[in-house]
Amino acid sequence: MCEAAVYIDRGGELEKIMDDVVEVRPEEGKLLLVDVFGEQKLVSARIAEVELLDHRIVLREPE
Amino acid sequence: MCEAAVYIDRGGELEKIMDDVVEVRPEEGKLLLVDVFGEQKLVSARIAEVELLDHRIVLREPE
Repeated sequence: MCEAAVYIDRGGELEKIMDDVVEVRPEEGKLLLVDVFGEQKLVSARIAEVELLDHRIVLREPE
Repeated sequence: MCEAAVYIDRGGELEKIMDDVVEVRPEEGKLLLVDVFGEQKLVSARIAEVELLDHRIVLREPE
């Protein structure tokens, strides 16, 4: 399986907001995160970085 | 291994720009794509969507 932990970059500090994420897509002007279990989370952010070797996706809040 | 094909969304049409990508990160105001072989590509775009089950990352050109 290929899943990732999603972090949000709060002024240089990474805060983990969801584990085992398989999908991140735009929805209603926000980002919808979906994990392997189908759990969803809607966040106001954009995707800043994807590091697949580290299984990490970093989001950033809108400027 | 967990890698993805990177596409750019050109008005709804997805054009593949790189295979086997493991890292997408901001660099010099653009996005740097790095594949499993260490090959790099710098593109003017932002990350719109990540679909890990489909091994796909979709970029969008700046508006």
